[in-house]
Amino acid sequence: MKFSERVRALQSSPVRRLLPYAEEARAKGKKIYPLNIGQPDIKTPPSFLEAIRGFSQEVIAYATSQGNNDLRDAMSAYYKNFDIPLEREDLIVTNGGSEALMFAFMAMCDPGDEVLIPEPFYANYNAFSGAVNVKVQPITTKAEEGFHLPPREEIESLITPKTKGILVANPGNPTGTIYTREEMDMLAALALKHDLYIVADEVYREFVYDGLKYTSFGHLPDIADRVIIVDSVSKRYSACGARIGCIGCRNRDFMAQVLKLAQGRLCVPTLEQVGATALYSTPKSYLEEVNKEYQSRRNTLYKALQEMPGVICAEPKGAFYVMVKLPVDDAEKFIIWMLQNFDVNGETLMAAGGEGFYATPGLGKQEFRLAYVLKNEDLLKAMNILKVGLEAYPGRIEPAVAR
Amino acid sequence: MKFSERVRALQSSPVRRLLPYAEEARAKGKKIYPLNIGQPDIKTPPSFLEAIRGFSQEVIAYATSQGNNDLRDAMSAYYKNFDIPLEREDLIVTNGGSEALMFAFMAMCDPGDEVLIPEPFYANYNAFSGAVNVKVQPITTKAEEGFHLPPREEIESLITPKTKGILVANPGNPTGTIYTREEMDMLAALALKHDLYIVADEVYREFVYDGLKYTSFGHLPDIADRVIIVDSVSKRYSACGARIGCIGCRNRDFMAQVLKLAQGRLCVPTLEQVGATALYSTPKSYLEEVNKEYQSRRNTLYKALQEMPGVICAEPKGAFYVMVKLPVDDAEKFIIWMLQNFDVNGETLMAAGGEGFYATPGLGKQEFRLAYVLKNEDLLKAMNILKVGLEAYPGRIEPAVAR
Repeated sequence: MKFSERVRALQSSPVRRLLPYAEEARAKGKKIYPLNIGQPDIKTPPSFLEAIRGFSQEVIAYATSQGNNDLRDAMSAYYKNFDIPLEREDLIVTNGGSEALMFAFMAMCDPGDEVLIPEPFYANYNAFSGAVNVKVQPITTKAEEGFHLPPREEIESLITPKTKGILVANPGNPTGTIYTREEMDMLAALALKHDLYIVADEVYREFVYDGLKYTSFGHLPDIADRVIIVDSVSKRYSACGARIGCIGCRNRDFMAQVLKLAQGRLCVPTLEQVGATALYSTPKSYLEEVNKEYQSRRNTLYKALQEMPGVICAEPKGAFYVMVKLPVDDAEKFIIWMLQNFDVNGETLMAAGGEGFYATPGLGKQEFRLAYVLKNEDLLKAMNILKVGLEAYPGRIEPAVAR
Repeated sequence: MKFSERVRALQSSPVRRLLPYAEEARAKGKKIYPLNIGQPDIKTPPSFLEAIRGFSQEVIAYATSQGNNDLRDAMSAYYKNFDIPLEREDLIVTNGGSEALMFAFMAMCDPGDEVLIPEPFYANYNAFSGAVNVKVQPITTKAEEGFHLPPREEIESLITPKTKGILVANPGNPTGTIYTREEMDMLAALALKHDLYIVADEVYREFVYDGLKYTSFGHLPDIADRVIIVDSVSKRYSACGARIGCIGCRNRDFMAQVLKLAQGRLCVPTLEQVGATALYSTPKSYLEEVNKEYQSRRNTLYKALQEMPGVICAEPKGAFYVMVKLPVDDAEKFIIWMLQNFDVNGETLMAAGGEGFYATPGLGKQEFRLAYVLKNEDLLKAMNILKVGLEAYPGRIEPAVAR
């Protein structure tokens, strides 16, 4: 039997495709520090389960396609608190940020259309776009420049008549980069000039460090009718398994188009919406403590990485990832070697290979992404394992070459 | 701002787009019998909520992309009990049957490819296919023939080099038709001859009446590598709001392709999987009682419809819908008129307009779909309202014309 070209062209998830090696290592009794996946160890606010436990209807019925009013009202209040003017009617609840991204691609683009995305980017952008035949046009950014954007001319030269939008994650995954207001204004100007949407993936909105001021694309009034906010409770409330997200846009005609897609899949789970509504009442102190914890972890990780010879990374300013350039022949080979052939006192670590975060072939081969989703004590142990592992790895190449 | 052609071409859901008229009528104090949507009134087995209430992990974490092993094992056992040999590895858990259908379309078809579907069909097939640029080639079936398939030559004449599969719902929604073994063998022979997939939407597998023998496409060994089973707990366990379904195929290479799509959206909600696992232990007596109840409702509805002058319908043999041809100018106009301008003692009813269930333009204009998801007493009241409404409707046309 044949398969479609679009599905054959999809890569396996770089975050998930090494899981068999990890399972094998675990079966041999190795302990693995899982820095490959953005699964936080932070407790989900108990209000989530409490609200669900309190659900007492006897029929688990369909919800509305746009999502529960209670939940959309709670989301709207949350945005207004952030000075992002999104009303209930500007929001549709989705199966995680994932579905919101999928809807955005489908509503903006026909097959063959293009979307600009700064690379390295969240690997699943490739999956969403590929599945619906949208071409990703990468805007290459570099660790040495903190993964900030290249000059306007360079970005503008990538725009073609097929370009329908610019997708930016801010704070960035896997880079941890926070865009400056100037960068955002530059993208906004390009969007206006070339009639493009801006898809703003802001699921890490609260994860901004060093007292940096955060600007949402929802704060820019000139482009309000072309900004599509993609969001999720997954990271904010450590509720990745709830799969509740939303798509928000002040352009009601756009939302009417998205509603047709939402109606096609009927609705998002009824109970998860009940739980998520409760999450939006989580006290601010929870988010502040989580922020403090991640900032501390970021410090731990970044300090340890800086001290490793031949390792290059930019200090992440947000989210909870760091993209690391390693003095190795192939970062994915190195990860597999760490799982199969290496340990320190029976312990090793797992990361996500870098190539999957790039659209440009060849880029990211020497990089991997670490998610600092473990407590400091474990991160320190993991970083020691990495240091010793890099020294012992047979495919190590000299730092000068790595640079 | 512009939108994609693919999203502009999507119709609003015929089942959901009349909701504003219903809300307006309710606001005026009218009681509405909701026969428009397949939302059963049957109680969800309490094991669903009990299992979820017992969930005690402190972090609501991601599940695996393919779905929990417990749930896939429960599904596999369920299929084996039906003599459908699907192992855990042949199954991926999805966000309802909806996502399973979407995955099937994407894995089979590139943009411009075609899928044959007997019409009238579940209206969302249009949404799924349109969103991913797959062309639906309808196989027209008729109420007068019980919506059974036309001769093989007629179907074969619709197959082109672009045809990648045949999608059949069995039992059928909105028709209630159960295909005979001969019809299924005929489709299987066509699939083998023309190298096509068969996507079998069997979410109503237990809803078969009059002691009819039910054959699943999973029972046909010759085409096991090309049968894609689409399934869901929604109707079986009256758990529509759980959004748990699955895609199953014994072709492991095909499932490896689907896994890439599943990885792209990370996972299905963790708690819903816990609840759904419990559902699969529901005693057989629950399903038997539900079957009996629906059969009785079918009898009630069909008898009442037969007694209405000018009304044509085939006796549904499965699922819980009936497609009805009415002596009216336009069935959707009639439904709106019933909501806006008509009532019997303050009560009216709602149905889903027929056109949305057809791909051939113009077909279904005089038809609507009724879902018999209410108890007999309410169905009788609703049928009386329909009878009186049809007599009073200004757009009534003579039965002879309707035929």
